[in-house]
Amino acid sequence: MRQAGRYMSDYRALRQRYSLLDICAQPELAVAVTLQPVDVIDVDAAILFSDLLLPFTPMGLAFDFVKGEGPSVEHPIRHAADVERVRVIDPREGLGHVLETIHLLRGELAGRVPLVGFGGAPFTMAAYAIEGGPSSNYARTKAFMYAQPAAWHTLCDRFATVMADYLVAQVAAGAQAIQVFDSWVGQLSRGDYREYALPHTRRIFEALGSTGVPTIHFGVNTAAILKEMAAAGGDVIGVDWRLPLDEAWNLIGNSAIQGNLDPTRLLGPEHGLFAAADDVLVRAAGRPGHIFNLGHGILPDTSLEKVQALARHVHTVSARSHGSRG
Amino acid sequence: MRQAGRYMSDYRALRQRYSLLDICAQPELAVAVTLQPVDVIDVDAAILFSDLLLPFTPMGLAFDFVKGEGPSVEHPIRHAADVERVRVIDPREGLGHVLETIHLLRGELAGRVPLVGFGGAPFTMAAYAIEGGPSSNYARTKAFMYAQPAAWHTLCDRFATVMADYLVAQVAAGAQAIQVFDSWVGQLSRGDYREYALPHTRRIFEALGSTGVPTIHFGVNTAAILKEMAAAGGDVIGVDWRLPLDEAWNLIGNSAIQGNLDPTRLLGPEHGLFAAADDVLVRAAGRPGHIFNLGHGILPDTSLEKVQALARHVHTVSARSHGSRG
Repeated sequence: MRQAGRYMSDYRALRQRYSLLDICAQPELAVAVTLQPVDVIDVDAAILFSDLLLPFTPMGLAFDFVKGEGPSVEHPIRHAADVERVRVIDPREGLGHVLETIHLLRGELAGRVPLVGFGGAPFTMAAYAIEGGPSSNYARTKAFMYAQPAAWHTLCDRFATVMADYLVAQVAAGAQAIQVFDSWVGQLSRGDYREYALPHTRRIFEALGSTGVPTIHFGVNTAAILKEMAAAGGDVIGVDWRLPLDEAWNLIGNSAIQGNLDPTRLLGPEHGLFAAADDVLVRAAGRPGHIFNLGHGILPDTSLEKVQALARHVHTVSARSHGSRG
Repeated sequence: MRQAGRYMSDYRALRQRYSLLDICAQPELAVAVTLQPVDVIDVDAAILFSDLLLPFTPMGLAFDFVKGEGPSVEHPIRHAADVERVRVIDPREGLGHVLETIHLLRGELAGRVPLVGFGGAPFTMAAYAIEGGPSSNYARTKAFMYAQPAAWHTLCDRFATVMADYLVAQVAAGAQAIQVFDSWVGQLSRGDYREYALPHTRRIFEALGSTGVPTIHFGVNTAAILKEMAAAGGDVIGVDWRLPLDEAWNLIGNSAIQGNLDPTRLLGPEHGLFAAADDVLVRAAGRPGHIFNLGHGILPDTSLEKVQALARHVHTVSARSHGSRG
């Protein structure tokens, strides 16, 4: 999950002068924003400040952020023929600024914490391209996928090619772990996940396998497809808060797990926040391979102090149970 | 799920002249709209045309529908003190027009198909009251629930009292089955469901138990809490399309099941629609107690012909496997 955001005053100050896309496009700014949470929250990793949709622009899908509404694609994919507009690009050219940000960040971090790069899974990229932005039911995406399966697979194939190449390039530029976000895949039935999403996601993890860095595979609303997501790939499966952590872990077998505190807990009182975090830690205890995290992104109204207190609490409890800060 | 809607030209024609709330408020109109799908789709039950939020107005929470955005509550519940504004009412007075609609409908239907009444579960009613409308993350609702648990339980208690009374009154007026919608409950972790939602929902099903009519308990995104929803009550548990039907059924034990075709299948070609419906029927075979339904409401862009074809297909396949139309 993006660590820097509107809940941080430093970030809000910068956003007075620059748009989200400005920050992503200028490596010095993206570096500064990536480092903000590392400096003030004592997190165990730095998450590259970037956006899932950055590949859209060089691929021929112009988009922008509309205030209060999120990303908006200028000419969404609506017909099979529109897929031809989607270009397979070389991310070293079209997305060189992101790779430059990663390169600079490794120098700035100087080994303090590892740097995590990320990108979108083909289903989620295709869903954004078809809907033109977020949606409550992804009806256009599914209608396209059911009615135009060949065009759907061509579209996902292009995203898989570009994303695999882009994420491998992120590792080459210095990313020490990669998280693949399949943000909207929880809208699919299990059968549809297997048919329309899994094969394309698998290609990305297969490509990342050659890099040797750990990979994380994340989605929300995925209780019904966790086993299938683990089969698609990822050393670590990221889960939301809906299933208790131990039960989710049983579904994904030998993969490690990341999660799964409900981020809205950060909007409530500290005793409830800590109790909910403890529940996650207890359910993860006695089995190696848990990365404590929220089950989704930090909400804009969250107080920074609460996030800091949570990080301290998790470190203290983990140190107590592992005998060292784990 | 509401059967009548924008996918029907008769309904669209009526909506040129009347708002959704006008139709709900005038029994003759609500009767006419309830009968539209019964007349043209050959469904096995009539679903009362009404709206989940109708109790809000007499309870002191004025609301309206904003074009393209859904319901909007004028003064949402934001502080513990706001809960005092929420009045426990006698639905026989404040919601008499709905009971009159039910009474008239039974006469019009004359036994053709059973009439299903419905209402919202306390969590979903409280979430609407706090958010003021739909939300993507229900952050205000959860923050309220975590920070003001006493006020939260008072609010849900009032909704449970009114809804139990209202639904029992629907049965007295002639409803032959009752569906309780907990539309947004899939946002909760299992622990939160047990603590903040389940006890209030249970009160409604306990009250309905004395009526003797079959009850249906429905939510979406509920793969992680199906067992708990079944424990809260309902002769039949309604499920969305995410989990395969047989697997969802194994989770709810002895309850019957309703579902679970993805409604976006109706936007795709007929062969895929029928194949997906067949998959639901095959997974339900060999065990009594399945009500075929969509996993959520019909989308506005759906073609009526496709819905008619689906109903015919399901009747044909069911008749073949049961030896009679079941």
